Amino acid sequence: MADYHLTPLEELTDLFRRLPGTGRKTARRLAFYLLNSPEEEVQAFADGVVNARRAVCTCHICQNLSDRDPCGLCTDMGRDLSTVCVVEEPKDVVALERAGEYRGVYHVLHGRISPMDGVGPDELRIAQLLERLSQGNIGEVILATSAGVEGEATTLYLSRLIKPFGVKVTRLAYGLPVGSDLEYADEVTLMRALEGRKEM
Amino acid sequence: MADYHLTPLEELTDLFRRLPGTGRKTARRLAFYLLNSPEEEVQAFADGVVNARRAVCTCHICQNLSDRDPCGLCTDMGRDLSTVCVVEEPKDVVALERAGEYRGVYHVLHGRISPMDGVGPDELRIAQLLERLSQGNIGEVILATSAGVEGEATTLYLSRLIKPFGVKVTRLAYGLPVGSDLEYADEVTLMRALEGRKEM
Repeated sequence: MADYHLTPLEELTDLFRRLPGTGRKTARRLAFYLLNSPEEEVQAFADGVVNARRAVCTCHICQNLSDRDPCGLCTDMGRDLSTVCVVEEPKDVVALERAGEYRGVYHVLHGRISPMDGVGPDELRIAQLLERLSQGNIGEVILATSAGVEGEATTLYLSRLIKPFGVKVTRLAYGLPVGSDLEYADEVTLMRALEGRKEM
Repeated sequence: MADYHLTPLEELTDLFRRLPGTGRKTARRLAFYLLNSPEEEVQAFADGVVNARRAVCTCHICQNLSDRDPCGLCTDMGRDLSTVCVVEEPKDVVALERAGEYRGVYHVLHGRISPMDGVGPDELRIAQLLERLSQGNIGEVILATSAGVEGEATTLYLSRLIKPFGVKVTRLAYGLPVGSDLEYADEVTLMRALEGRKEM
């Protein structure tokens, strides 16, 4: 192997491996694809990546990624600005918007409290949320963190911080995923679904 | 959703979706990662991609991707230049070199005959292989295409073309993957393993 140099391939594979969730085989497949593509196409891909990154900014109100500040959601007069849904990541906003039901606004924490990963409350956009609350126009905060232990911890931490502002604090319902079979649900989800049962 | 614009995210997601084997969720995860990365890092990623593509060239002898022409393998005097292993893709060269046993050189077809995908013999680097053979320094051609129907068809097609040159034509052995259980092998592999049985 000593005389075997295929440096551009190795370099490109390494670049892709640094992206999250990209293992050796995936990185190599992407590298080969680009090395086999016309140079103009590869240049267009690279330009597109840089331009997208340049065009993105953070909305100073909701902390979501956007192409303008304040973002389209925070300036949408058709939305209920007094209801704030707190999520962990921008992708959660995308998911909730796709569901299409929610008409309030958002607050993106950019993570969740996770001592194992060295993420404490100060690493999240919690100060910005409290600043929004202190302005007094918010009536309800919906905590929509992820359903695991860390999301739970974040929700508890936030609810204690928010309650002194005198606003309603709610959280998303736990329960069975729609369309799923009872027999495949784990015990904790089943227990939560029972606890949260509704009268018909 | 009408007022919801997150254009840089959508653009970047689209860019990644065009890469092979990258679905909507993977593309979005990569897009979010880069949009959350410092602008310098994203610029470095984009530059790296373009530079790798610029640095890569095709070896005029073996048709493999390399950073020079002729490539390090074709100019390695420690290798047996009279034995040529024909593979479908540059990644197959990487796989064989990783195995570390083979000391001959390669010829990369850049595909396999696949009428369903509109790939005929003219789309592959077959003319370049015949040109190498016509120079008369090659004693054995090892056909190492993939083990499916299309690889098989490519191998049969090539063996007919190569035999008139009077060189030895061999193919990789079919059989059980090393370390695998007999009970999990499909019937065709088992049949081939039986056919190819060796005296001990």
